Amino acid sequence: MSKHLHNILHQLKKGQLSVEAAEQMLKSYEDLGFVKVDVHRQRRKGFPEVIYGEGKTAEQILKIIKSLQETENRILVTRVSEEKGQKVINEQSEIVWDSTSKTLVWKRENEPEILYDGYVSVLCAGTSDLTVAEEAAVSLEAMGVRPMRFYDVGVAGIHRLFDQLDEIKKASVIIAIAGMEGALPSVVGGLVDKPVLAVPTSVGYGANLNGISSLLTMLNSCSSGISVVNIDNGFGAAYQAALIHRLVYQKSN
Amino acid sequence: MSKHLHNILHQLKKGQLSVEAAEQMLKSYEDLGFVKVDVHRQRRKGFPEVIYGEGKTAEQILKIIKSLQETENRILVTRVSEEKGQKVINEQSEIVWDSTSKTLVWKRENEPEILYDGYVSVLCAGTSDLTVAEEAAVSLEAMGVRPMRFYDVGVAGIHRLFDQLDEIKKASVIIAIAGMEGALPSVVGGLVDKPVLAVPTSVGYGANLNGISSLLTMLNSCSSGISVVNIDNGFGAAYQAALIHRLVYQKSN
Amino acid sequence: MSKHLHNILHQLKKGQLSVEAAEQMLKSYEDLGFVKVDVHRQRRKGFPEVIYGEGKTAEQILKIIKSLQETENRILVTRVSEEKGQKVINEQSEIVWDSTSKTLVWKRENEPEILYDGYVSVLCAGTSDLTVAEEAAVSLEAMGVRPMRFYDVGVAGIHRLFDQLDEIKKASVIIAIAGMEGALPSVVGGLVDKPVLAVPTSVGYGANLNGISSLLTMLNSCSSGISVVNIDNGFGAAYQAALIHRLVYQKSN
Amino acid sequence: MSKHLHNILHQLKKGQLSVEAAEQMLKSYEDLGFVKVDVHRQRRKGFPEVIYGEGKTAEQILKIIKSLQETENRILVTRVSEEKGQKVINEQSEIVWDSTSKTLVWKRENEPEILYDGYVSVLCAGTSDLTVAEEAAVSLEAMGVRPMRFYDVGVAGIHRLFDQLDEIKKASVIIAIAGMEGALPSVVGGLVDKPVLAVPTSVGYGANLNGISSLLTMLNSCSSGISVVNIDNGFGAAYQAALIHRLVYQKSN
Amino acid sequence: MSKHLHNILHQLKKGQLSVEAAEQMLKSYEDLGFVKVDVHRQRRKGFPEVIYGEGKTAEQILKIIKSLQETENRILVTRVSEEKGQKVINEQSEIVWDSTSKTLVWKRENEPEILYDGYVSVLCAGTSDLTVAEEAAVSLEAMGVRPMRFYDVGVAGIHRLFDQLDEIKKASVIIAIAGMEGALPSVVGGLVDKPVLAVPTSVGYGANLNGISSLLTMLNSCSSGISVVNIDNGFGAAYQAALIHRLVYQKSN
Amino acid sequence: MSKHLHNILHQLKKGQLSVEAAEQMLKSYEDLGFVKVDVHRQRRKGFPEVIYGEGKTAEQILKIIKSLQETENRILVTRVSEEKGQKVINEQSEIVWDSTSKTLVWKRENEPEILYDGYVSVLCAGTSDLTVAEEAAVSLEAMGVRPMRFYDVGVAGIHRLFDQLDEIKKASVIIAIAGMEGALPSVVGGLVDKPVLAVPTSVGYGANLNGISSLLTMLNSCSSGISVVNIDNGFGAAYQAALIHRLVYQKSN
Amino acid sequence: MSKHLHNILHQLKKGQLSVEAAEQMLKSYEDLGFVKVDVHRQRRKGFPEVIYGEGKTAEQILKIIKSLQETENRILVTRVSEEKGQKVINEQSEIVWDSTSKTLVWKRENEPEILYDGYVSVLCAGTSDLTVAEEAAVSLEAMGVRPMRFYDVGVAGIHRLFDQLDEIKKASVIIAIAGMEGALPSVVGGLVDKPVLAVPTSVGYGANLNGISSLLTMLNSCSSGISVVNIDNGFGAAYQAALIHRLVYQKSN
Amino acid sequence: MSKHLHNILHQLKKGQLSVEAAEQMLKSYEDLGFVKVDVHRQRRKGFPEVIYGEGKTAEQILKIIKSLQETENRILVTRVSEEKGQKVINEQSEIVWDSTSKTLVWKRENEPEILYDGYVSVLCAGTSDLTVAEEAAVSLEAMGVRPMRFYDVGVAGIHRLFDQLDEIKKASVIIAIAGMEGALPSVVGGLVDKPVLAVPTSVGYGANLNGISSLLTMLNSCSSGISVVNIDNGFGAAYQAALIHRLVYQKSN
Repeated sequence: MSKHLHNILHQLKKGQLSVEAAEQMLKSYEDLGFVKVDVHRQRRKGFPEVIYGEGKTAEQILKIIKSLQETENRILVTRVSEEKGQKVINEQSEIVWDSTSKTLVWKRENEPEILYDGYVSVLCAGTSDLTVAEEAAVSLEAMGVRPMRFYDVGVAGIHRLFDQLDEIKKASVIIAIAGMEGALPSVVGGLVDKPVLAVPTSVGYGANLNGISSLLTMLNSCSSGISVVNIDNGFGAAYQAALIHRLVYQKSN
Repeated sequence: MSKHLHNILHQLKKGQLSVEAAEQMLKSYEDLGFVKVDVHRQRRKGFPEVIYGEGKTAEQILKIIKSLQETENRILVTRVSEEKGQKVINEQSEIVWDSTSKTLVWKRENEPEILYDGYVSVLCAGTSDLTVAEEAAVSLEAMGVRPMRFYDVGVAGIHRLFDQLDEIKKASVIIAIAGMEGALPSVVGGLVDKPVLAVPTSVGYGANLNGISSLLTMLNSCSSGISVVNIDNGFGAAYQAALIHRLVYQKSN
Repeated sequence: MSKHLHNILHQLKKGQLSVEAAEQMLKSYEDLGFVKVDVHRQRRKGFPEVIYGEGKTAEQILKIIKSLQETENRILVTRVSEEKGQKVINEQSEIVWDSTSKTLVWKRENEPEILYDGYVSVLCAGTSDLTVAEEAAVSLEAMGVRPMRFYDVGVAGIHRLFDQLDEIKKASVIIAIAGMEGALPSVVGGLVDKPVLAVPTSVGYGANLNGISSLLTMLNSCSSGISVVNIDNGFGAAYQAALIHRLVYQKSN
Repeated sequence: MSKHLHNILHQLKKGQLSVEAAEQMLKSYEDLGFVKVDVHRQRRKGFPEVIYGEGKTAEQILKIIKSLQETENRILVTRVSEEKGQKVINEQSEIVWDSTSKTLVWKRENEPEILYDGYVSVLCAGTSDLTVAEEAAVSLEAMGVRPMRFYDVGVAGIHRLFDQLDEIKKASVIIAIAGMEGALPSVVGGLVDKPVLAVPTSVGYGANLNGISSLLTMLNSCSSGISVVNIDNGFGAAYQAALIHRLVYQKSN
Repeated sequence: MSKHLHNILHQLKKGQLSVEAAEQMLKSYEDLGFVKVDVHRQRRKGFPEVIYGEGKTAEQILKIIKSLQETENRILVTRVSEEKGQKVINEQSEIVWDSTSKTLVWKRENEPEILYDGYVSVLCAGTSDLTVAEEAAVSLEAMGVRPMRFYDVGVAGIHRLFDQLDEIKKASVIIAIAGMEGALPSVVGGLVDKPVLAVPTSVGYGANLNGISSLLTMLNSCSSGISVVNIDNGFGAAYQAALIHRLVYQKSN
Repeated sequence: MSKHLHNILHQLKKGQLSVEAAEQMLKSYEDLGFVKVDVHRQRRKGFPEVIYGEGKTAEQILKIIKSLQETENRILVTRVSEEKGQKVINEQSEIVWDSTSKTLVWKRENEPEILYDGYVSVLCAGTSDLTVAEEAAVSLEAMGVRPMRFYDVGVAGIHRLFDQLDEIKKASVIIAIAGMEGALPSVVGGLVDKPVLAVPTSVGYGANLNGISSLLTMLNSCSSGISVVNIDNGFGAAYQAALIHRLVYQKSN
Repeated sequence: MSKHLHNILHQLKKGQLSVEAAEQMLKSYEDLGFVKVDVHRQRRKGFPEVIYGEGKTAEQILKIIKSLQETENRILVTRVSEEKGQKVINEQSEIVWDSTSKTLVWKRENEPEILYDGYVSVLCAGTSDLTVAEEAAVSLEAMGVRPMRFYDVGVAGIHRLFDQLDEIKKASVIIAIAGMEGALPSVVGGLVDKPVLAVPTSVGYGANLNGISSLLTMLNSCSSGISVVNIDNGFGAAYQAALIHRLVYQKSN
Repeated sequence: MSKHLHNILHQLKKGQLSVEAAEQMLKSYEDLGFVKVDVHRQRRKGFPEVIYGEGKTAEQILKIIKSLQETENRILVTRVSEEKGQKVINEQSEIVWDSTSKTLVWKRENEPEILYDGYVSVLCAGTSDLTVAEEAAVSLEAMGVRPMRFYDVGVAGIHRLFDQLDEIKKASVIIAIAGMEGALPSVVGGLVDKPVLAVPTSVGYGANLNGISSLLTMLNSCSSGISVVNIDNGFGAAYQAALIHRLVYQKSN
């Protein structure tokens, strides 16, 4: 910041700027600041604008999408019901609504699918966790990161996990999704040396307490290298994974 | 019961019993009933009388032990602190106080160590769970059932579990003890075809909630064949295991 | 395992196996391993494949059933709503959908009803717990174990329990199901010397907290010989009961 | 109240009272009101003043006692530790400190032990609940109501309860005290036609949650005629029992 | 019981009974026992049979009612929705379904409305608690006890409570019903010398936690003479109140 | 802010400031910003610096006090144990440690006791809540606001509250402190037209859950005009009250 | 009160009042008391009568409104669904139903919009919190206090908050509304020297626990000058804010 | 793995290995497997062996350290009390016990301090969170990653955070530690584009619920790019941060 400030002050001193212009620049710097910069950076880097669809109408979603399409190349909307999704794609047929992940994704023509080398492993314990797993996978894709899916690898049949361990471990980050007792991230965390992002799901009943049980399991893991996001928050894990993935592959280029 | 009743009534009818004697027998049946029968059966079968030591003084414990020694061959006291344990064994040196399991065990001279073939596997996830694991193991021994100990086989280093799986599976019942995230019973349950008794422990901190997290994990296990006892209740699991073990080996003799 | 390994290596050494074949055998051993063996054992022993119907469509359920019918003799699907159940039996009329237990059961023609001697007692406290009780009973039947039903024997009218105690006690295992305050397993546990599997139900209101109250009651039971499964998990109790029952009656044959 | 008001106004009108005196009377009526009357009534009826000792020093307790001795015939202090109790009885040897119930009781010389016919049954499930049970029993005595003690009648050995049921049922009210799973009041409530006051205790561990489990059990009882007080609140149950008992025996005289 | 037993044995001894008859009598005593006696006593005393309607169909309810009408004079069904209530009264027009309390009540012709002198006060804090209050009031009436209603007397406008305090206090028992913060029983308990039965309701939102907040308030009351029933359990409070009321007025006759 | 900025830029433009000086001024504005201004304002207005003593050593507290004494006129330290308090006042005898509120207060010589007209009413329900009540009262005094204490006015003896209502209502703000069931703020809120700040305390046992019960009661109050601070947070209520009080009396001068 | 009482007694003494009239006056004072006075004061001051619409039918709401219209100038009904709102405004077209805040507001003709100078800032973190924010804003307006809306100023984009800080701080009181993690009031509380009323909302999912998470965040704020109302209780915050605002601006006039 | 297997089989085939040797190799592969490999990798990479000191005696800790010193270059022990720490360093003076972080760290002579470029930012909200913050910082150092400390940057004085934002953002990963309301990670997450690892601490009281409140705040954050570890788990955050940091800087070399 100080460089930016220094330059403006110098320009003012030298008469290259009026007081009003300098004031405006400093103010705009202040008002819009880092966030605006972030927005620019995101567009350049392929990170999409993300809209949380829950509680918004189809009309509101469409309006936000249209506004973003003026400047953005990739747009992601999460938590969109079938009814709302249909309304949106009826208006703009190039938007994709995905029935499993409940997401809307839009990419500008010629925008590349994938922006980084490598991949993020997305594991889920059971077929009932698919919605969350696909929210994570689709979100990764929307951010230009390749997801590698390893589904139905829960601890009740642990050989399925071991069969694919070599592929799982090659990722930069591992997203491990589980409902019920939520033990998958612990087991994975003991077998790999990559960061594991654990996503508890609300799949279960009774003492599962709508996912609280899985959440607690993951927070208490005695394996190292695990951190946790909110229940059913596939997008949250994907975003964190993409941040890490980009760091790794930006450095290497 | 009806046979017992029938006989008494017949004896009364035939004049072989006075009304008072019959009344006494029916009453004693009633007053002491099945429980007394249970006690007899237990002594015959080697199941000890069990005293919950928490909240009892050394003096109270000693008094109960002495009273039981008149009729019982095996006595077990759980949850006995070092201080209380020392006081008791100072009085009766043939009683054994165990510093890990916090138990007092007494066996009549010549009473055999083990009363049944086979064994019960006792698994624990970490060294911090040893108190609970030993409460289970010592309780099994007190009931004449051989425990086979498999300690430090937690899911954070799952190969240690696999190395010993063949031995673990040969048991009649498997007691799986774990604190922290409590995932061990789920993993074991997916690998064996024996009943697994899961014991959550209060080992952990923060979101472990004094063992509630482990408890919930075990109740929500997606592996089949698992049931759960109270937090830190090593004795409870051992008792249930011994009931099952006896059923299996009684039948076979 | 080591014997299996030893043999393969010897055969390779002796030239009876190519490197590729040995590799394949070791790998397939590794990939499919114990689980495949378990599957074989289950089919031989009459334990059915079990599908958790919640969250699966009728089409998905039917597809899994058809796939299993190629190799299995007994199939059980739990948590199937009436609508889904109807769709399935419209397709295959030999499958039975049960309206109380919400289960689908299929048995190959000439497959025997019951595969073991003896029985498991299934107790429930009130008529509102019937769904859970029948899930347990039908699951036992699907696994070839005879359930003996003792319904409406709750502690508010404890004489109904005592009237049937002799029959209840003859079982290998007792499944005790209760909602509301969940006191039935404690009372039963004090009267019998068989393992009691306690199933809390979500029947109740207010401070019942959707079954948490019953669950806590059962975990804190001061009767010995009780272990607990998740709320409403009739199948879970039945599965563990069948594991124990089979152990007892396998040994005796 | 309106009669009292009417009289004062009439006396004022007739000149029998000055405005100031009438004002004072109406105000004092207002200021001290029903509560003062309650105090008088209590002394007449033998209900003692009750002091909650927790968080008060021995000195504070003694000071309150001395102040009450000027007008009261019976004084009860609950939750008094041994150290504080000793200090108090060192000062006034006619006060009784009871080591089990942790109470201080004082009665004026010649004040009768018991003021009402009949009795209140005090049941407790285990010996660990004795402190709470005796707090209830001693509180009843302090209020002039006879307690009849039935201890160690928990549901794990239900025959002990049945043996004494006839005596238990003759009471006006039954106080049923239990920790652990807290099932005693439910069982009792199904066997008697008297009001049952249920007292959960904090005896237990793990999933007992310091008595919350017992409390929930009692609130969810499917037996009718049960109401519940706070965890460990032996005094609270005794106070309500005494209110009911007095109603019953006042009416009959 | 011992007298009953003694007589049977004597009759057997004297040849006045066959062994079979004595056996039958002792058995029937055992099988039906105290419970049958209770049923008889209830009918004589006017206490109705009570059916918990939740989870039962209109058909099931009607069938139970018809069965009870053979022997009972008063029948009460609680928690009956409008739809189910309509079905029932369409069949039997002399049954009354009450839309506020969601109860069905039937009385045999000429059965008196009220069976005891005096009354029970039923207080509720707000108009939203009416369903619970009326469940209590109608239940009292069904048991032959007169309820005196004092509605909308919550602590937010405490003068309304004081205005009616004299009438409230004349009752044998006071039922105090409140949702939200649930403070009413505490305030009432500080003003009266009658037992207060507190009923928390699930009325409220947010931190009310479906009535848990009100429940905790009532359990922690610092006023003496209060006990608590489950959330929304108007019937439970009424039953307990009727037990107490009957004790008071039976004695006095 | 914009004025400040405008001036600096103008001075730079006019050559009254070097670029470096302007840069420094803008930076220091930024670095120290509004907070520094707040500090100045507080000293002028008499609001003291407040230190949370919990978890700080006597030495650390003393060091902070000394540093503040250079610029501040009033200093308040909350949550100071007796041992730590003694150490501090041994060093500086003009600091006051208060044994009830566990606070340290220092005022510069000649600093006035009270800085505003009017007062804030501090109510507490029972004598056990005194520590919290005095933390509030002493904190008010430290901020120059007069507290008016109304202690032991709990709802179990509601006449004591009514006796003093007129005085209570004259305050600008009412702080109502209560443990146990925490009903006091609701009752007060229904009687006054001033903002009520409710402080739950951890006084109680069992279902009080260390103050959670009181907290929930207060959050669910059906009286309007109540807001709540954390359990035992007497200081927090006092600070909020002082903010409001100052607003009222600043405006009026 | 004492003055009122004094006068009546004097008039009675002087014969200016009959005993009956004095009695009536004192009684009516008593019966209607402070509340009636409050009602009068409210109407004079512009505070409306407020009806909680949840659980009331459109008919009931309309009836209460009509009754209040006889004496009140401003009426507010909160928590009114669209269906109920439509029914009401179909009857009385001058009533306004607001679709965002779910409120009904009625003002007598010529009743001024705003009754006080200054304003209350209403901040909300996200667009999903709008219902609660508008309930607060509309409630303020109904009480004659001007709300200044600052929406979508959540901590995830904190620059939006800073941009408007100067305007926010000019208010007498700041209402800060947030769901999800609920951090807004803490951040605001650290930046302003006005009382902050924090409103948690139930917006969120999973570990948000229907707003409990936001509630806890706000109660634990380490910023001073924050107090909290129930989850989603926009009206509650507005009411307390209006109480404070009126105090400030009444004083100043 | 398959390559390793392939080679062994080939060697056996070619007679370069005996059956026994091949068996041993395959077995050792199996028994020690990936874990051993991990250990090797860790030593090479500078990741230390980590011991959880809680619940281990000084003697046990010392024994483990000595055993590890044979093969490891860096050893870290967390959660070591002063008493235990002193015992250990009395034995081996080259081990460092740190009083703030409660850690023991040992490095082989000449082992470099730092093994990677760049740094991880460690932020904490208040001075009370220092133990957790230093556990994180020291753990990072033990793993060869440089921590950059930014302490006392809580949201109650948010300018302190902004002052250092530029430095904070240059890290690969940001660890944000906070107790009380735990809002720091949300605010940071909204300002940076690096992964934030959030650590709730148990610092607080009352409704903080021993850190549960902070934990929930962090899980519900509406800022993206945040994941959470267990309460007070500074080491856990450091371990995951080091995993990520190593990935980033390994790639770049």
